[in-house]
Amino acid sequence: MRVDGQFRRTIWADEPGTVGIIDQTRLPHRFESIRLTSLLEAAHAISSMQVRGAPLIGVTAAYGVALALGESASDAALSQAVETLAATRPTAVNLRWALERLRADLAPRPEAERSAAAWRLAGEMAEEDVCVCSAIGDHGLPLITEIAERKNGAAVNILTHCNAGWLATVDWGTATAPIYKAHEAGIPVHVFVDETRPRNQGASLTAWELAHHGVPHTIIVDNTGGHLMQHGMVDLVLVGTDRTSARGDVCNKIGTYLKALAAHDNSVPFYVAAPSSSIDFTIENAQRDIPIEERGAHEITHMSGETEAGEIATVRIAPRKSPVLNFAFDITPARLVTGLITERGIVAATQEALAHAFPDRL
Amino acid sequence: MRVDGQFRRTIWADEPGTVGIIDQTRLPHRFESIRLTSLLEAAHAISSMQVRGAPLIGVTAAYGVALALGESASDAALSQAVETLAATRPTAVNLRWALERLRADLAPRPEAERSAAAWRLAGEMAEEDVCVCSAIGDHGLPLITEIAERKNGAAVNILTHCNAGWLATVDWGTATAPIYKAHEAGIPVHVFVDETRPRNQGASLTAWELAHHGVPHTIIVDNTGGHLMQHGMVDLVLVGTDRTSARGDVCNKIGTYLKALAAHDNSVPFYVAAPSSSIDFTIENAQRDIPIEERGAHEITHMSGETEAGEIATVRIAPRKSPVLNFAFDITPARLVTGLITERGIVAATQEALAHAFPDRL
Repeated sequence: MRVDGQFRRTIWADEPGTVGIIDQTRLPHRFESIRLTSLLEAAHAISSMQVRGAPLIGVTAAYGVALALGESASDAALSQAVETLAATRPTAVNLRWALERLRADLAPRPEAERSAAAWRLAGEMAEEDVCVCSAIGDHGLPLITEIAERKNGAAVNILTHCNAGWLATVDWGTATAPIYKAHEAGIPVHVFVDETRPRNQGASLTAWELAHHGVPHTIIVDNTGGHLMQHGMVDLVLVGTDRTSARGDVCNKIGTYLKALAAHDNSVPFYVAAPSSSIDFTIENAQRDIPIEERGAHEITHMSGETEAGEIATVRIAPRKSPVLNFAFDITPARLVTGLITERGIVAATQEALAHAFPDRL
Repeated sequence: MRVDGQFRRTIWADEPGTVGIIDQTRLPHRFESIRLTSLLEAAHAISSMQVRGAPLIGVTAAYGVALALGESASDAALSQAVETLAATRPTAVNLRWALERLRADLAPRPEAERSAAAWRLAGEMAEEDVCVCSAIGDHGLPLITEIAERKNGAAVNILTHCNAGWLATVDWGTATAPIYKAHEAGIPVHVFVDETRPRNQGASLTAWELAHHGVPHTIIVDNTGGHLMQHGMVDLVLVGTDRTSARGDVCNKIGTYLKALAAHDNSVPFYVAAPSSSIDFTIENAQRDIPIEERGAHEITHMSGETEAGEIATVRIAPRKSPVLNFAFDITPARLVTGLITERGIVAATQEALAHAFPDRL
């Protein structure tokens, strides 16, 4: 999407043998790119969340394999690259899906061909991600158009949680794709952006990308969505997913479940933008079977920001004597999901509907 | 309650004609008292949230009237003191309740008696607040004891939101009173403390007071409570209230409603500690008739904390181009409230039960 008028993507093949990424740990205060030159740098970019978002993690892992095979393309090197990258984050399924696809394509090839094939495949996966997100945008757009028609020109108010924006993908985003498509089509939209503690990826990333693309929006703290829905200030909730089960349970950033409950209690439609790569057909009961990442205390006890002098500083915000607990994701049961917006259209969050839409994935 | 072994209160009559308070804007990083010497200092202490919490605001306002009448005890001075203090915060009903009680007592008296009467009455109101909170603790204690008996010695896990602790009252707190009573009685309790954005009063105040009194607890971000309840990690939710309507709708810190929805969805009991001074029998439909305070953007866009060097610093955490919206409270409908813990016992959140328990207030 655009950053102050210039089109950008989150990841790109740079001069031969390197990969460029936007360093998302520096946003919203700094907009900086960095260059990845090795497997370990790619793994670090994922684990340190310089890149994050399930789709972008998958594409970065693919480029990570390509970087690894530039050094050695042996069976051992391929296995080690896949294992190193798979261990970076536990929850998103796209990561494992991308790595298995690469392994299946590359392993049968002669060593001499593997590096070039890996670069080609990583590039294809990046392009596919753009197409998938664009299709999600096209399928989600009518949800916004219909509300706009009812509202006679008043802005459609959409609430989103965390960042399922273009920064979480290669371009377009998942939950934001219908929003960007509506904005491009001249439909007035306004987005309530959940701050999304503890990493504040809503305020730091979603608000940043909406602001720089020119989409009207307002940041709220995570506590506020229920109040807004009680007062008719939200027409539609649109979120992303890190992994969705075969029966439509949605694993997404911690707090998504609370917003789904509020949407249900106030009859606000709750849609999940779910590229099929994030649907895990091997899991039915998400609550029982999807591992929920527990992250470090520092994300809760400390906060980084910009001082008046324009420097980035980190301050401790919690008392020293208090322990903290930091679960990164929660599960929204399928019963609270109005629909899943996939690249093949809107699908009900049920086992039958998902199986019908994706027979090739069963 | 205790601060590292020493018993403290949040407000006290200091050397003749002044009032001491704990400056709560400095917590958790600094534990400092300040002395109020005038009406304007008392009004500033409330509006700047050096003191906060509905019960403590009421007591501080009472002392504010006493401070004002030390300068002039005329009818005009009394009216001006009441009006100035009433304008400091719009949502809590205790503030208006305390001021009306003072006005009704003082106005009929000769001017020469008013100042001494105001000091005496403010002191009585502080003592009453301690008694009310202690009674709430006694009435809420059996809820914890019963769960403890079922758990065979394992800690009772209680989730709380914002600060309805002793820092929000003169002593004991409202929602924390049953917790402190259980802790004193040797019943193992563990408190999940919602951070409570945007002012982080859970992490800054509740966690601080629990830590310094020695009660086991864990800070979580506001997004996490639903996940914990889904996994059986919460036995009981206990929160406070800024104003509860005649039919039991509960106005409390923004985000309370979301936790009530999660408690309901997971069959976790959801109790509200409600001193009768916070029940507004003139209002039935809280959502329609209780004004919800909108506070400044700075609370969301900036965060204060302690640097590594031990200095208090403020950093900007949100992007500069994004607007914010900062509602301070929301309404939890009575249907989601398991019961109200009042100084007269546990009362169902219904018009009939409240009228039956408080016939003198109708």
